Amino acid sequence: MMNKYRLMSPGPTPIPPEVSAAGALPIIHHRTPEFGEVFTRVNEALKRVFLTENDVFTYAASGTGAFEGAVQNLFSPGDKILVVNNGNFGGRWVKVGKAFGLEVTELKYDWGQKADNDEVAEALANDPEIKAAVCVLSETSTGTVNDIEGFAKAASNVVTIVDAVSGLGACELRTDDWGIDVVVAGSQKALMTPPGLGFVSVSERAMRMHEEAKMPRFYFDWTAAKKAYAKDPAQTAWTPAVSLIIQLDVALRQLLDEGVENVFGRHVLLGRASREGIKGMGLSLFGPDEDLNSAVTAAWVPEGVDGKQLVRMIFREHGIQIAGGQADMAGRIFRIGHCGYFDAFDIIATIAATELALESLDFPVELGKGVGAAQRVFSKSGVTA
Amino acid sequence: MMNKYRLMSPGPTPIPPEVSAAGALPIIHHRTPEFGEVFTRVNEALKRVFLTENDVFTYAASGTGAFEGAVQNLFSPGDKILVVNNGNFGGRWVKVGKAFGLEVTELKYDWGQKADNDEVAEALANDPEIKAAVCVLSETSTGTVNDIEGFAKAASNVVTIVDAVSGLGACELRTDDWGIDVVVAGSQKALMTPPGLGFVSVSERAMRMHEEAKMPRFYFDWTAAKKAYAKDPAQTAWTPAVSLIIQLDVALRQLLDEGVENVFGRHVLLGRASREGIKGMGLSLFGPDEDLNSAVTAAWVPEGVDGKQLVRMIFREHGIQIAGGQADMAGRIFRIGHCGYFDAFDIIATIAATELALESLDFPVELGKGVGAAQRVFSKSGVTA
Amino acid sequence: MMNKYRLMSPGPTPIPPEVSAAGALPIIHHRTPEFGEVFTRVNEALKRVFLTENDVFTYAASGTGAFEGAVQNLFSPGDKILVVNNGNFGGRWVKVGKAFGLEVTELKYDWGQKADNDEVAEALANDPEIKAAVCVLSETSTGTVNDIEGFAKAASNVVTIVDAVSGLGACELRTDDWGIDVVVAGSQKALMTPPGLGFVSVSERAMRMHEEAKMPRFYFDWTAAKKAYAKDPAQTAWTPAVSLIIQLDVALRQLLDEGVENVFGRHVLLGRASREGIKGMGLSLFGPDEDLNSAVTAAWVPEGVDGKQLVRMIFREHGIQIAGGQADMAGRIFRIGHCGYFDAFDIIATIAATELALESLDFPVELGKGVGAAQRVFSKSGVTA
Amino acid sequence: MMNKYRLMSPGPTPIPPEVSAAGALPIIHHRTPEFGEVFTRVNEALKRVFLTENDVFTYAASGTGAFEGAVQNLFSPGDKILVVNNGNFGGRWVKVGKAFGLEVTELKYDWGQKADNDEVAEALANDPEIKAAVCVLSETSTGTVNDIEGFAKAASNVVTIVDAVSGLGACELRTDDWGIDVVVAGSQKALMTPPGLGFVSVSERAMRMHEEAKMPRFYFDWTAAKKAYAKDPAQTAWTPAVSLIIQLDVALRQLLDEGVENVFGRHVLLGRASREGIKGMGLSLFGPDEDLNSAVTAAWVPEGVDGKQLVRMIFREHGIQIAGGQADMAGRIFRIGHCGYFDAFDIIATIAATELALESLDFPVELGKGVGAAQRVFSKSGVTA
Repeated sequence: MMNKYRLMSPGPTPIPPEVSAAGALPIIHHRTPEFGEVFTRVNEALKRVFLTENDVFTYAASGTGAFEGAVQNLFSPGDKILVVNNGNFGGRWVKVGKAFGLEVTELKYDWGQKADNDEVAEALANDPEIKAAVCVLSETSTGTVNDIEGFAKAASNVVTIVDAVSGLGACELRTDDWGIDVVVAGSQKALMTPPGLGFVSVSERAMRMHEEAKMPRFYFDWTAAKKAYAKDPAQTAWTPAVSLIIQLDVALRQLLDEGVENVFGRHVLLGRASREGIKGMGLSLFGPDEDLNSAVTAAWVPEGVDGKQLVRMIFREHGIQIAGGQADMAGRIFRIGHCGYFDAFDIIATIAATELALESLDFPVELGKGVGAAQRVFSKSGVTA
Repeated sequence: MMNKYRLMSPGPTPIPPEVSAAGALPIIHHRTPEFGEVFTRVNEALKRVFLTENDVFTYAASGTGAFEGAVQNLFSPGDKILVVNNGNFGGRWVKVGKAFGLEVTELKYDWGQKADNDEVAEALANDPEIKAAVCVLSETSTGTVNDIEGFAKAASNVVTIVDAVSGLGACELRTDDWGIDVVVAGSQKALMTPPGLGFVSVSERAMRMHEEAKMPRFYFDWTAAKKAYAKDPAQTAWTPAVSLIIQLDVALRQLLDEGVENVFGRHVLLGRASREGIKGMGLSLFGPDEDLNSAVTAAWVPEGVDGKQLVRMIFREHGIQIAGGQADMAGRIFRIGHCGYFDAFDIIATIAATELALESLDFPVELGKGVGAAQRVFSKSGVTA
Repeated sequence: MMNKYRLMSPGPTPIPPEVSAAGALPIIHHRTPEFGEVFTRVNEALKRVFLTENDVFTYAASGTGAFEGAVQNLFSPGDKILVVNNGNFGGRWVKVGKAFGLEVTELKYDWGQKADNDEVAEALANDPEIKAAVCVLSETSTGTVNDIEGFAKAASNVVTIVDAVSGLGACELRTDDWGIDVVVAGSQKALMTPPGLGFVSVSERAMRMHEEAKMPRFYFDWTAAKKAYAKDPAQTAWTPAVSLIIQLDVALRQLLDEGVENVFGRHVLLGRASREGIKGMGLSLFGPDEDLNSAVTAAWVPEGVDGKQLVRMIFREHGIQIAGGQADMAGRIFRIGHCGYFDAFDIIATIAATELALESLDFPVELGKGVGAAQRVFSKSGVTA
Repeated sequence: MMNKYRLMSPGPTPIPPEVSAAGALPIIHHRTPEFGEVFTRVNEALKRVFLTENDVFTYAASGTGAFEGAVQNLFSPGDKILVVNNGNFGGRWVKVGKAFGLEVTELKYDWGQKADNDEVAEALANDPEIKAAVCVLSETSTGTVNDIEGFAKAASNVVTIVDAVSGLGACELRTDDWGIDVVVAGSQKALMTPPGLGFVSVSERAMRMHEEAKMPRFYFDWTAAKKAYAKDPAQTAWTPAVSLIIQLDVALRQLLDEGVENVFGRHVLLGRASREGIKGMGLSLFGPDEDLNSAVTAAWVPEGVDGKQLVRMIFREHGIQIAGGQADMAGRIFRIGHCGYFDAFDIIATIAATELALESLDFPVELGKGVGAAQRVFSKSGVTA
């Protein structure tokens, strides 16, 4: 039977139809007043979403590019950093740090576990040469969201870097209130825009560290970016991805119309409904069952079921694209992405499809039971937000 | 909470994203070879969807325009026709017929009831001056689908006209095999194209009747259309709705890629799941519980619930747009449209939203129960297709 | 060599890229508040473009449909009308009138000639039974624009009908100031929207005549339209062409942002530049050399040149689609459409391509001479606007 | 007067309407078979446009990113390279090289002058430690195109790097035939796609040098890219810019349908017509008057004219966006970009607008004279291709 394509992976994520339609607009030059207006509005809106007064620089790059940029801009070879690693993306920071010749102190946790901010404080106390601490907001690989407010407190003596690629706009993150120096993000998740833009917000403290940093860099250079942004209207150092920025403008307006706090609240409900749905169909969650985990929900593949086949069947038979596990977790967990342009019925469809697929794979499920549990989250008389 | 807009009304209906994107193409002249190619392909595809060798004329008009055209083209003032009226659109044919000075014999049934083809045969036998018989395929106002094969047999001595506006491409309709002379349809339902195009297929017998018909006409004139279609490549008599035809081309290709018979089968399942979902949540169907009703599903609003409020709440709280009842049925029934670009999870979302809304309105439902019933239709181990 | 497709025909015409992109938006239901807002804005904007306080009804139909509708709505069989016929579209009104059983008094002029409003007054004085007078604003077939202000004065005792399909939004037309009862238009010319919408504005006097009119009608019925428009928000009687109306909304906003009077002024310059360009390359204009002719410019094909080949060559070799002559004028004249989304460089490109094609066909031209003449129109020191 | 926006700058450049419309398609996951098909086709097409059998890696980045990547991937700090610098982009390579700690031997030429390949050979002979030589194909800042075939011969003993950002697809470049190791390009010029994609083709020799290179890198790492491309179907190392790649697929199909050699030929004519037009209106070319210069045409602003005002006036009064000079050339030259989606009438419009603007600025021009000169290039009887 024909299925619509429903993208429920942790990235890229679906974009609103108005953002799609804006993709059909013609290319305008990035030095026109018209683009200047768009870009100025985008910069202002990004600050409101990042909850910061800091500059937020936009790059034609994926999130990985923006975080390589952070490393290039902040450090000199041999500098020491602390990286919290409780998943694939924490692990990537370790790799990027090492690739750039940093001395990386790694605080490693099992996948699915949250970082312990007391240990962060301790590690920093133990080694006063550490110049910066890195933590992932939402670990896309596991769904676990770290307590960033606590992290920022624990690491307040050093420059704090938060990888918010899959979390920004889905999980509460108060850049300035919490005192985070550098936040890295991408366009293709909760910002509801096609992939291809990377973002970084930079505090004054980070900018001062940058001025001392000797790592070779060019494309992602913050000094070049700062200089271009200081123009009136603001510009990018290199040719910007004009069409993606025009689409971002539409997406951010929708996000701000909904209201940043409402967006956080919606994601909390989406996460909660995903967890209830999964438990309702008799499966076990991977990672903590808490509202913090509002971007991605991960669950254990039950005994006797082939995890890869499950994910494939949900896609092939039902058109819904969720994700399997990464690295060691391949075949053992599955993940539902709900950071971005998602609503109640996306979760309900995904739970329903998972029930159908499990049944096909001879796992005993009562069709509708998980869905009912998810529905109760969205019900006025159900689990309260 | 933010909701996506989900259009589940019986028309207009959602269109595939590829059809949306084709709407962004620039306007080309209708006399270019490029448009000629598109239009030739569209005409061929329409025949395959109408299951006919007859010409299918395309008009810039809604379905109502195309059926006014059928009246203008086939009749002279004072001609007698038989109209089966078991809903709002059957009733409209009576009005159009009378507006054009025809003598209309009306076979009237309660809304929700199917036409009795024995009565059709009898009425025609009783009045040999009747020149044509009209029947609606899928009564959008009630969800009831008439037995058109039986109708065509019963009325085989006269010109048969089928109003397939909401049915074509959703309900089995074999124009040539069943011997239907004139089929009227529109773009905005199962043809998955924006509203604005009307279609009519015309048999040789109908064309002969047309040649005698004296009703004044110009815009919808079949002779003018036939002359333009006979050119190489085929043209329309007047400026065609170029962009809609380009979108129709994309939509028809998708429909034919799925396969006309598979499309019928999918709609049977969508209807069945809608009915099971409705019964599963404890409501009563409006109209017969049969697979024929594959375009629209109607149900009674339960006692103690305000039908208009129910429909409004499903839209406002959940973003899903179903329809209420028309005329006498306003507030008493609600209707789910599933003719066109719909899949299993559209039905599941709609059932889930209806459950949630009923619960809010203090009607006792067990969340997930109706959804489970709908899921079983799509389950391999469930109700078989 | 690769050529861009440049549509310079008198219809359909190119649409702005923002209008194209709006064609990629998804379909919304015509009973949503969102569509209500769009439609209300469109109706208001149409009045500002028609320069009228009268209702302007929008139909899913081409302009021809809207004018058949005017005949159905205003008259009873046997009614007398006066039709000014100085081109193909004037001629079409004669045909439509006769098709609907009217007694048509025809004021016939050679193609390219303007109507003589004294003769209009005289014809009406001679036959007091004539109930209405029809005149085309811009004769697409010849480029000639009639003096409609004079026509309206001459015919002030009867209902006046103006066919403004190719003229509205390109040629000055002051519906209320000049006292025109019925103006018929289409979306695909100066309104910069894809083809598929027809419009009609109806004065109170026309509405009163409509109430007496006995012509059979349904789809285009003004009473049905008026009733639907009186709702809050206004609706159409039948399913509207939702996507085209959403595109029209964007187009009309652009038109009003430019300003109706500026739009008229721009078209005057486009017409003037076309005429200067044509004369500059040594060709002769077809029809009067006056600023009134601001929608379409027609010229004689010079001796020794095959007119059809010229038009074809400009298209095939240069990608620019102009039009040849219609009916008797086929092969003898060519026509450049410039009603709608056109600017100075569209005219310059067309003149340049015509020069190149003429040269290829061994007609002696000095390349750049016609272009220079056209440029002077747009030059500040040149022919003044 | 309303003007259409006509983008005639050397980048970004306009994109075909079909490429725009493809921007409205929804986001699909980069691991779907559907995207796999697109990406495989894109990779194959890129090779055909680069005229190479080497891998062509695609990055979410602007061209500058891709060339920073080349430096990171090929070198270790302290390595020696030769950079030909005859404009802004040659100069940028010097900066990038130095930023990454390379020892840069600079072969400097006046802007507008072509590189002397004998001097390239000599410089390399003089310093056998130089590991690579860099040359820009088309200097966007001046319009000058270097003789890359000669450069590749002269530098055949070292790894050759060509910056083809504005040249690829506009100027003849035979990567394999000429033996070029690394070609860097971007999406936003002759590839007729929105900005945001960077490309690099890498020969086996370059890949071997890469294996020894110790420069820190991550995002642009070729080893990571190579590994991802080796999968079936090919993938990118990080989330690709899905929508831009889908648009690139459409653009490349158009480019290959036209034929790479025809595309080169078209650009030769566009350049020639630009030069003739400029000379025709009495201005002087900046840089050599030769067919090699097929991507950008630069001219001296005449005495007594304010160059910035000229560029601004052409934009504000006529809607055509050309570019001024960069760095020292600011206000002294102006540049017309014609690499990509451009045809004869884009050049003609630009020449015509320049004439009009010059006239407004009291520079004596005969309107149409430059245009005529440009037309003659496109005329069959004119300057032959």
